[in-house]
Amino acid sequence: MRGGLRDEDRERVRVVLVGSRNPLNIGAAARAMANFGFGRLRVVTPYEVAFREARSAVDAEGVLRAAEEFGTVAEAVADCGLVVGTTGGVGRHRPDPLVRLEEGARAIREQLRAGGRVAVLFGSEKTGLRNEELDYCQVLMRIPTGTEQPSMNLGQAVAVVLYELIRAGDAEAVAETEPLATAEERERLVGVLVEALRASGYKQRDAEGTEEKVRRLVGRMGGTGEDLREWLGVMRRVGRG
Amino acid sequence: MRGGLRDEDRERVRVVLVGSRNPLNIGAAARAMANFGFGRLRVVTPYEVAFREARSAVDAEGVLRAAEEFGTVAEAVADCGLVVGTTGGVGRHRPDPLVRLEEGARAIREQLRAGGRVAVLFGSEKTGLRNEELDYCQVLMRIPTGTEQPSMNLGQAVAVVLYELIRAGDAEAVAETEPLATAEERERLVGVLVEALRASGYKQRDAEGTEEKVRRLVGRMGGTGEDLREWLGVMRRVGRG
Repeated sequence: MRGGLRDEDRERVRVVLVGSRNPLNIGAAARAMANFGFGRLRVVTPYEVAFREARSAVDAEGVLRAAEEFGTVAEAVADCGLVVGTTGGVGRHRPDPLVRLEEGARAIREQLRAGGRVAVLFGSEKTGLRNEELDYCQVLMRIPTGTEQPSMNLGQAVAVVLYELIRAGDAEAVAETEPLATAEERERLVGVLVEALRASGYKQRDAEGTEEKVRRLVGRMGGTGEDLREWLGVMRRVGRG
Repeated sequence: MRGGLRDEDRERVRVVLVGSRNPLNIGAAARAMANFGFGRLRVVTPYEVAFREARSAVDAEGVLRAAEEFGTVAEAVADCGLVVGTTGGVGRHRPDPLVRLEEGARAIREQLRAGGRVAVLFGSEKTGLRNEELDYCQVLMRIPTGTEQPSMNLGQAVAVVLYELIRAGDAEAVAETEPLATAEERERLVGVLVEALRASGYKQRDAEGTEEKVRRLVGRMGGTGEDLREWLGVMRRVGRG
């Protein structure tokens, strides 16, 4: 065992780069993964060229060769229980609780120890994660940068987050948790709810779409696969009422 | 105060880059410093050109403009109390006690809180710190990278070390979470759901009552007062459909 995570826990982490354009940054992220013993990189709609160029990055060939490409965030996180968004920024205007990295990492380690799979999302250098991408996240965590220069370089952000995951913590109380439902299971509940809302003639008054709102609500509620199945049963009944 | 270090403690840290050749790396180190609120960069015998190019790095102009140049490590650390060498590598053949970053950072914070000045040395990408440079160090610390790919990129190493310095320790962790909704708020949702289920003609097959089951589900989902209000809105719509 190295630090706070066992090898088999690291195996269940997916580092997901969303919309990264800079091959140097993709390569740097892969290198940080190799440094800290993480092997599963996923990229969502990278510019084809950026990704191809990154594949030749030194010191991280293995990680880059095994990287998986996805067209959407939904697909990239579908098989993951806990989905965590990362931001170096401050002052995002979202209602979600935004936790510090130290606390987010604790939630991640708990999931991993329970046997669950975790996706950690990083946005592009320009825009960070956009709202519709954040909707898939149950935890949004902030690297504790200062207000004067909050925005981190992507490769450095990945390095800091992975380091926090593996660092040897002060004895951590291991809560007896169960793995969360997967994003795919959550999407099933989102689908049933959205359909029921539409059937009821529901119209959003504000700008945010119904589906996005429901996805965010379902994501925030957590829950195991069993919980989600129970909710599905309840909602199918209610929607039919 | 941000995290584990006060602003005046950060002021007493000198980040010393020894023999860095790559302007991108010098710029990245400066950016990580700006991110975590450190301002005092020192460079030892950089290639003139590398340093001049780095001075134009985005997002870290202030740090780079204020950087000091020295001809030798001896001069660069002369006014510092604690001198700490950093290595991402493993298996250095030196007799020094080589501590993990977590432990080295503790020693650094102690010095800073006692009012002392601390130099943290980073070697060049090619060679790391050489023995005659390590001789100035009282503490040699190792970023806990794995054996397969131990060597870190300079900018990433600086980011990880500074993060470890400022992170909120487990005792000091400041949660930025919001309080959960009250039981009363949850009961309101339970009431709406139970009513909707009954209206739909729902009958439980097992022994547990509908209300108890719904209460348990709602209780397990957590959520803030705002979350609960949003769910209430959704459920009232769906139940009416």
